[in-house]
Amino acid sequence: LVNYERAVRFEEVDAAGIVYFAHIVSYAHEAMENLFGALDGGYAGLIMRRRTGLPAVRLVAEFHAPLRYGDRMRIETEVTRLGNRSVTFSHRIRGGGGAVCAAISHTVVITDLDTLRSCAMPADIRALLEQHGAPVS
Amino acid sequence: LVNYERAVRFEEVDAAGIVYFAHIVSYAHEAMENLFGALDGGYAGLIMRRRTGLPAVRLVAEFHAPLRYGDRMRIETEVTRLGNRSVTFSHRIRGGGGAVCAAISHTVVITDLDTLRSCAMPADIRALLEQHGAPVS
Amino acid sequence: LVNYERAVRFEEVDAAGIVYFAHIVSYAHEAMENLFGALDGGYAGLIMRRRTGLPAVRLVAEFHAPLRYGDRMRIETEVTRLGNRSVTFSHRIRGGGGAVCAAISHTVVITDLDTLRSCAMPADIRALLEQHGAPVS
Amino acid sequence: LVNYERAVRFEEVDAAGIVYFAHIVSYAHEAMENLFGALDGGYAGLIMRRRTGLPAVRLVAEFHAPLRYGDRMRIETEVTRLGNRSVTFSHRIRGGGGAVCAAISHTVVITDLDTLRSCAMPADIRALLEQHGAPVS
Repeated sequence: LVNYERAVRFEEVDAAGIVYFAHIVSYAHEAMENLFGALDGGYAGLIMRRRTGLPAVRLVAEFHAPLRYGDRMRIETEVTRLGNRSVTFSHRIRGGGGAVCAAISHTVVITDLDTLRSCAMPADIRALLEQHGAPVS
Repeated sequence: LVNYERAVRFEEVDAAGIVYFAHIVSYAHEAMENLFGALDGGYAGLIMRRRTGLPAVRLVAEFHAPLRYGDRMRIETEVTRLGNRSVTFSHRIRGGGGAVCAAISHTVVITDLDTLRSCAMPADIRALLEQHGAPVS
Repeated sequence: LVNYERAVRFEEVDAAGIVYFAHIVSYAHEAMENLFGALDGGYAGLIMRRRTGLPAVRLVAEFHAPLRYGDRMRIETEVTRLGNRSVTFSHRIRGGGGAVCAAISHTVVITDLDTLRSCAMPADIRALLEQHGAPVS
Repeated sequence: LVNYERAVRFEEVDAAGIVYFAHIVSYAHEAMENLFGALDGGYAGLIMRRRTGLPAVRLVAEFHAPLRYGDRMRIETEVTRLGNRSVTFSHRIRGGGGAVCAAISHTVVITDLDTLRSCAMPADIRALLEQHGAPVS
């Protein structure tokens, strides 16, 4: 389990006055990037130097309660499935009071960004993901 | 079935060079807004004048192929479940060649924006949604 | 003078309830892209195929009145300076009632996107820009 | 002078592969919000509880060098003009190597968010701004 905390930003609300749901989906990506911070060069090094990315192939999100500007959230992330070429992250986004505002399951595929084809998971990525989760499926 | 077309925007790609997945989720909202264009005042009138919104409670997205800057997409939207206080939209996002790049199921709850509580579906909204879909569940 | 019209989008407001100022800046880019629509392949063709871009080097914006969700705006764009490697666009953004909500002067440099160095302006770009503006400086 | 640091985010680049200029403008807002963090409740408290905002009325930006995904930036912010109802912030955005990538002058007006009219600057805001800047004009 990895924890990532940050405040809702001023421009993340919509005309209904609550955080726009697509930004909540983006929080899942941010939490994943944060998890890769433990890797040398972080997620940016993966993308920019190694040209290896993790585009989403499947997303399931449940929105339980709205988030508002000024809320500080904590995102708890764990690996719930680790395949040969894909990984599923499960994120719980908790608002100021600790209640779960959203739960997101987010499956990504290890991808060669030059060809946009899936590729085998590099050993250092697998080792990192194994620290945060579930048994190899 | 309602069709909505638009081009990918310059700023919607990410550092991997393809459309950021959270923007694809946002396309589902745009397609829903477009569907409400048939209502007097459109979606904006609903939000700003009637203070009635449709926040998402559940989202299931499958991403089949990347979208790139310059792609023109067509989003096909239909109502696949119509409840007393909620509705599920199903969106197929097709890229330039017509292939389905993403399929999104998007459930929203009719909400009083002043109290942020669910409310009964207004008759004009129900009538509009019944034109685009499935039997009342 | 080129006119470009569109409605404010649901997610473009901020926690103060008006369109976030950085989105208004982005409207200037959208209006420029629209102007390049007259070119074969449009702005996307320029970026993706010809690898020629127009990054901003200078921006001056005056914000006169707020824009809100539901407003339909018209952006009037003209070329106010045309140099050998740069061009300045002047945009007036008018809200629903026709009043100018923002005026933006936006200078961009013709840039080879592979080297990120400025380059001479291609003849077709110059010809297009000459139609929308001011004398060569 | 206040310093604010953060990394470029994955979704902040555009189809040209560099940070989209409107996001750089947004960094100026983020730096301003950071400066208000010293106030009780921060910028969010100002907006949400006190209903006092600081919408931009004028912006001048010079973009000297591109920012890329993975760059870590430092934004140096100071108050360069402090009026009765307005304030001008000057931001220098430095990239990884320390070079100035962008310089932004950003003038905002103290505004009652319920009426969207300018109002006199509250004493605590004035006191805070006086710590970070220039003489009262």
